[in-house]
Amino acid sequence: MIRNVAIMGATGAVGQELLKILEQRNFPLQNLKLLASERSVGREYEFKGEKLKVELTCKDAFKNVDLVLSSAGASVSKEFAPIAVDAGAVVVDNTSFFRMDPNVPLVVPEVNPEDIKLHKGIIANPNCTTIMMVVALKPINDLSKITRIHVATYQSASGAGATGMAELKQQYQEIVEGKPVTVKKFAHQLAYNLIPHIDVFTDNGYTKEEMKMFNETRKIMHSDVRCAATCVRVSALRCHSEAISFETERPLSIEEVSNAIKNGEGLQLCDDVANNVYPMPLNLMGTDDVYVGRIRKDLACDNGMNIWIVGDQIRKGAALNAVQIAERL
Amino acid sequence: MIRNVAIMGATGAVGQELLKILEQRNFPLQNLKLLASERSVGREYEFKGEKLKVELTCKDAFKNVDLVLSSAGASVSKEFAPIAVDAGAVVVDNTSFFRMDPNVPLVVPEVNPEDIKLHKGIIANPNCTTIMMVVALKPINDLSKITRIHVATYQSASGAGATGMAELKQQYQEIVEGKPVTVKKFAHQLAYNLIPHIDVFTDNGYTKEEMKMFNETRKIMHSDVRCAATCVRVSALRCHSEAISFETERPLSIEEVSNAIKNGEGLQLCDDVANNVYPMPLNLMGTDDVYVGRIRKDLACDNGMNIWIVGDQIRKGAALNAVQIAERL
Repeated sequence: MIRNVAIMGATGAVGQELLKILEQRNFPLQNLKLLASERSVGREYEFKGEKLKVELTCKDAFKNVDLVLSSAGASVSKEFAPIAVDAGAVVVDNTSFFRMDPNVPLVVPEVNPEDIKLHKGIIANPNCTTIMMVVALKPINDLSKITRIHVATYQSASGAGATGMAELKQQYQEIVEGKPVTVKKFAHQLAYNLIPHIDVFTDNGYTKEEMKMFNETRKIMHSDVRCAATCVRVSALRCHSEAISFETERPLSIEEVSNAIKNGEGLQLCDDVANNVYPMPLNLMGTDDVYVGRIRKDLACDNGMNIWIVGDQIRKGAALNAVQIAERL
Repeated sequence: MIRNVAIMGATGAVGQELLKILEQRNFPLQNLKLLASERSVGREYEFKGEKLKVELTCKDAFKNVDLVLSSAGASVSKEFAPIAVDAGAVVVDNTSFFRMDPNVPLVVPEVNPEDIKLHKGIIANPNCTTIMMVVALKPINDLSKITRIHVATYQSASGAGATGMAELKQQYQEIVEGKPVTVKKFAHQLAYNLIPHIDVFTDNGYTKEEMKMFNETRKIMHSDVRCAATCVRVSALRCHSEAISFETERPLSIEEVSNAIKNGEGLQLCDDVANNVYPMPLNLMGTDDVYVGRIRKDLACDNGMNIWIVGDQIRKGAALNAVQIAERL
C-alpha cells in the first residue's frame, strides 16, 4: 500500500510534470514530499490546494517513504535510489542509470506491464524517444514481429529540461531584438537550426541517445529487433516527433496497422492526409497519448511500413509513464 | 555559343540566387534578361554594376535568347519552355514539370553529366532534396551499388521560397511580441513546429515531394534503387538536412565511405564528432557543397550505413545546379 510518496528532482521539468499528473490523476497518496538539491530547498509548490516546501535530498529523506518518483539525474539516482530502497521504498527512476541493469525491469505499462512484478526495489523508466516508439510499435508487433527499425527523431528543446525550453525562447527573443544569441544549454545555437547530437557520442559513432533506442527497445519488447536511430534536436518547444520505418515478418496492410493503432493502448490515430491531418508537436503539448499518422507502405522494402509519431515526451515520455508504473504497483 | 541569357522567375528566391551565381562565377554571357510576371515588371536588380529592369514573361521575350534559366513554377514552365525552345533557346528548368518526361534529361552535373547531351531543348533540374542526396550518394554508389534508401528530411522554410522565409521570421517576431501568429504560406504555423507535409499528397500516402525522391533518384542515377522518404518542414530559415540510411550490395567500411565523400565532387566531409563537428543548417547558409557527417554503420542491417547531410538547397539544390548544367552546355 502506497501512502507516502516522494518526488526526487521536484523542481525540474519532469518533476513539475509529476506533481501535476499526481494531482490530475488523483493518485492515491497520503503524503507527498518534494526533494531537490540544496539551492532549491525552501521553494514552495502547490499540490491539491496545499503548499509543499521543497526539502533536501539526503539519506534521511526517505524514512517512511513508500514510493520515490525520481528524475534528478543519473548521478543522484545512483547515490540515492539504493538508499531509498534500503529504507523500504520502491523507486521508479526516470534517469538512464539503472535502465540496462539486468536486475532492474525497464517498463512501459502499455508494452510490458508484466515486468513490473520482477522488481527488486527499483523500476526504470525508459528514455522518452524509446517510450513513444515502443508504445506505437507494440500493437503492430503483436500483428507480426518487427525485425528492423530505422528511425529519425525530431526532438524538442524540452528534452533538455525546463532550461532548454527557456534557452530556445530566449534565443528567438534575442534574434528578434537584434541582440547576440546566448548559447549555454545546447552545444550550438538551436534557434533556426538543427543539432544532430543528443547526449554524448559513443565509440561506434552513435550517440548515447541513439543507442538507448537500440538497447532499450530490445529490453522492453523482449525482442532481438535491430534499430538504427538518428537523433536530432529541433527548434520546437515541447513534444518529440519520429519518422519510423519498420519491417515485419509478414507484410501488413495499411488497414491492419491503422486498426492496430486505433485500438492500441495509449495511442491516437491521427491520419487523414486528405484534410491535412497528421500529428504535429505544436498542437500536442500537454497531451498524454502518442499520436500516429502518415501510415503508408514502405517503398524501399516489401514487408516495410512508414509512420510518423508525435508525443509530449515530458508527459508520456517521462512523468506520465512513471506515474502509470506506480499506479500498477 | 551562349550569348544571351534569360532568367524566368527572376524575382523569386531561386531567381535571385541565379542572378548572384551568374555574377559570382563570372558566367560567360553578353546580355542578361530578367523575366517575371506582370506585377514585378519594372523592378530593378543589379548585375555586375549594371541595373537590369524586369521584363514581362511573354511569347516575344525569348527572341535571340540562347539560354533560359527557369524557376517560375511548373505552370509557367509548361507554357513558356516550349516557346523558348522554338525560338532557339536551351531551357534549364528548375520546376517539376518536365523532370519525369522521358525526352528530357534530368541532370545533376556531379552525377550524370553525360545526360546533358541527350537534350532536345529542355534540361530539367531535379528537386532540391534529391539533388543533395544523389550528390552525396554518387561516390558511394561507385564503390558498391546502393539498393535501398530510407531518408527523413528536415527542410527549411526557404524551400517554400522567399515568402516562406519571411513568414517564418514574421511568426517568431509575432510570438516574441505576444501577437497572434500569421499563417499564410504554410498549411500550419511553422514557428516552434514541424509539418510532415511538403507538396501535395498522392494516392499511396506519400507526398509529391517524397515521390520525387523515389522517382528522380532512379532517373538521375540510372538505377532501380528503392527510396522511401519522409519529408518534413522544420523551423530553419535556409539549408535542408537529411538523415539517410542506405544499403549497398557489398558491406562498406566507414573509412571507404569517408574517403569517397572526401574525394567526391561537390562534397565536403564534415565528420569529427569528438569535437562536436557535424553539418548544421545554421552554419552552411550560402555555401555551394553538400556537407556530410555522422557516418556510421547501420545497426539495423548488415550492408547498411547511416549519414547526415546538409546543403543550401537554394544554391546547390536549385540555382547553382542549374548554372552548373548551363556551364557544361
